[in-house]
Amino acid sequence: MSAQAEPATTQRLELALAAIAQSGEEGRLTFTRLYEIDARAAATAADARLRAGHSLGPLDGRLVSIKDLFDVAGEPTTAGSAILRDAPPAAHDAVVVRRLRAGGAVIVGKTNMTEFAFSGVGINPHYGTPGNSHDAARIPGGSSSGAGISVARGFVDIAIGSDTGGSVRIPAALNGIVGFKPSQARVPRGGGFPLSYSLDTVGPLCHNVADALAADTVLSGVEHLPGASRSVRGLRLGIPRGVLFTETQAEVLAAFERAIERLGAAGARISDETLDDLLGEPFRLQEQGTLVAAEAASIHQHLIKDRPEAYDPMVLGRIRRGETMSAAAYISLVQARMKLLPRIDARMTDFDALLLPTVPMLAPRIDDLSQESAFMRANMLLLRNPSVFNFFDLPALSLPAPTGIGLPVGLMLVGRRGGDRDLLAIGSAIEALLRPVDGEALQTEC
Amino acid sequence: MSAQAEPATTQRLELALAAIAQSGEEGRLTFTRLYEIDARAAATAADARLRAGHSLGPLDGRLVSIKDLFDVAGEPTTAGSAILRDAPPAAHDAVVVRRLRAGGAVIVGKTNMTEFAFSGVGINPHYGTPGNSHDAARIPGGSSSGAGISVARGFVDIAIGSDTGGSVRIPAALNGIVGFKPSQARVPRGGGFPLSYSLDTVGPLCHNVADALAADTVLSGVEHLPGASRSVRGLRLGIPRGVLFTETQAEVLAAFERAIERLGAAGARISDETLDDLLGEPFRLQEQGTLVAAEAASIHQHLIKDRPEAYDPMVLGRIRRGETMSAAAYISLVQARMKLLPRIDARMTDFDALLLPTVPMLAPRIDDLSQESAFMRANMLLLRNPSVFNFFDLPALSLPAPTGIGLPVGLMLVGRRGGDRDLLAIGSAIEALLRPVDGEALQTEC
Repeated sequence: MSAQAEPATTQRLELALAAIAQSGEEGRLTFTRLYEIDARAAATAADARLRAGHSLGPLDGRLVSIKDLFDVAGEPTTAGSAILRDAPPAAHDAVVVRRLRAGGAVIVGKTNMTEFAFSGVGINPHYGTPGNSHDAARIPGGSSSGAGISVARGFVDIAIGSDTGGSVRIPAALNGIVGFKPSQARVPRGGGFPLSYSLDTVGPLCHNVADALAADTVLSGVEHLPGASRSVRGLRLGIPRGVLFTETQAEVLAAFERAIERLGAAGARISDETLDDLLGEPFRLQEQGTLVAAEAASIHQHLIKDRPEAYDPMVLGRIRRGETMSAAAYISLVQARMKLLPRIDARMTDFDALLLPTVPMLAPRIDDLSQESAFMRANMLLLRNPSVFNFFDLPALSLPAPTGIGLPVGLMLVGRRGGDRDLLAIGSAIEALLRPVDGEALQTEC
Repeated sequence: MSAQAEPATTQRLELALAAIAQSGEEGRLTFTRLYEIDARAAATAADARLRAGHSLGPLDGRLVSIKDLFDVAGEPTTAGSAILRDAPPAAHDAVVVRRLRAGGAVIVGKTNMTEFAFSGVGINPHYGTPGNSHDAARIPGGSSSGAGISVARGFVDIAIGSDTGGSVRIPAALNGIVGFKPSQARVPRGGGFPLSYSLDTVGPLCHNVADALAADTVLSGVEHLPGASRSVRGLRLGIPRGVLFTETQAEVLAAFERAIERLGAAGARISDETLDDLLGEPFRLQEQGTLVAAEAASIHQHLIKDRPEAYDPMVLGRIRRGETMSAAAYISLVQARMKLLPRIDARMTDFDALLLPTVPMLAPRIDDLSQESAFMRANMLLLRNPSVFNFFDLPALSLPAPTGIGLPVGLMLVGRRGGDRDLLAIGSAIEALLRPVDGEALQTEC
């Protein structure tokens, strides 16, 4: 029995469903599907468990959305596309959907996304584009566009997205929320429509790091052992000034530098690091063709052959670039990547995390991206920083920076290989310094 | 202190070195390099340990050869090629070489092989072709040609080979010895010159299954727990009659059927199994290009560009076929393979092992393969049965069948996924039935 007057899950769900309905167009653009009936049943069950004093874990009774690319048994998985609207229904829930249900989460709906997760912008010509939570004329960021908006507008507590080159962290940064990309092997991808076998990861977007930790516990199946907290004092943060700091908007850089100052004042040991020899490698190695394009060309070869006209032309063109890559070039790229991983690990031993802007820009206006060249440039810049850490398969967390300018800026923390939980503990300490939340929320989610 | 009058390692080594020297041409064709000085030092150390009552494990003091593709610190790794004769010296021993040394093995020499391990025949135009141990006018089998001969001629106890499509099992079958291809992840491949990232495995050729178990213990680093023995009585053996039994020479089939009869008479439960829907898949999926060719095209792209004329034309042509494969086709093949693995696992639950001829032919005469078409046909048939189980990544063991015809025939046992040790226990029981060895040898090696 909750003595803290926390509204019951059923009440929170009804408020959320009402808010979605009242938001009209924005709700429709955020969710491709709502599960009112199933969600009400799950909420009732969560309340019954609460009354009985049982809990299924840290997501029990939490309102959650899932990205449109996760299988739900009995319905087609469209992955933001038109071409899969009439696909055969999925036979099983995706692994993460199963884990959410087993953990008592209330799955409110499926969220809109870039077609086949193939951009960081979040524009979708088939299902429309949800507006940025801070300015609806601006992009939501993608590919987990509806995921970001579903959290930022308060429709759900936690959104489950996928991140292949920034698709969780970009909408988190552009909407002022938290986004966590785990190590690839941490969360099973079974039953998620793939973009890249090499790079796809599954992770949460949420209001605070405590919720990211709760989601990580359920998605990864790794039990949370409380007490692994970190302090900002003595934290060693490396700032990889160089290629990932170029072309950065002044407002973003200013917010970043202010955050650094506050961290330094609180006792963090901040050092500028020269890592361009490694951080530039993903771009150099992929000049003639990317892992994503080659793997997408394989995944989509039959669909593209059948109905190329059903694709968003911006997506189709970029998948088709992968068609000309040779097997030998792809295999060499995969091997070169594997050889890079121990090299960055060796350099990461000098600090607890890297810190850099998640993306180098504020959310651009949707209208400003109507020209293909402007779209391509924005997309390239949005993906640039996050994608490096999919290539290196390091855990990465985007936190909102204090800005005072009305549009959010994201700080990206990058952890060591396999150090997903340690990164969340570091993120929690930094979050507490930069954006104090009330003590209760921090405690109840751990 | 050995009370059993087993000759000391130093004596056994001197006998081996003398036998190699006395064999003249055959010794030179079997070994690309001999390590007399290092081997004598290792043998002396092994004898000192024996006197002191210490042992480094089941390979302590055993005479071992290593295939020419494993790195030995300070010397170029030629992998049976001419083009790498002047390659930079290896900086470190290969992982398996390090494990052999740490386990007290006496590494006698490096063994000849097909250039870059790219055929099952064993012919090498650069270093010559060792003759079959039962008839020097016939092929040794490959690609671990010298490995097979070094054991079959008694120069060493155990040879370490690599097996990508049969390169351990084919020379084992054609020379009447034991060859074990483990699961791919079981033995680290670091410091071995690669043929195929997807399919390469490292395993031993030896005189009996007990030695294969001893080698597996050291190469895999998995401790051997004694007592996991199996009995032929009640053993469930599936015979996958169908595509892998076509084009089989009468002598091979006769030896196979006699072995089956003896196993049945001893209480094994033999069943014919229809598995062609799965066993045909590796061929169907690779009609337009193989994993090996695509991966070799990547590995060799720079060498081939620089000096194509330095390659064996039979090898060069087959690597070049991989150059035309697209990344998308390769990725689709890799994914299709991954989906097949659980399907064969489901079918393997009905029996303890599959049993089939290792190769469908007796060792052909070298002269009969001088025409390219004859070579290609023999190579295709030699690789056919073994390569299927690299594709499925199942452990496989080739045992000599009793023949009485003067030329060896191999029986291939295929185990379940991850069941490497169980397969060796099954192989040991079958070996004891088909080819009784003296009790002492069986006991001392476990």
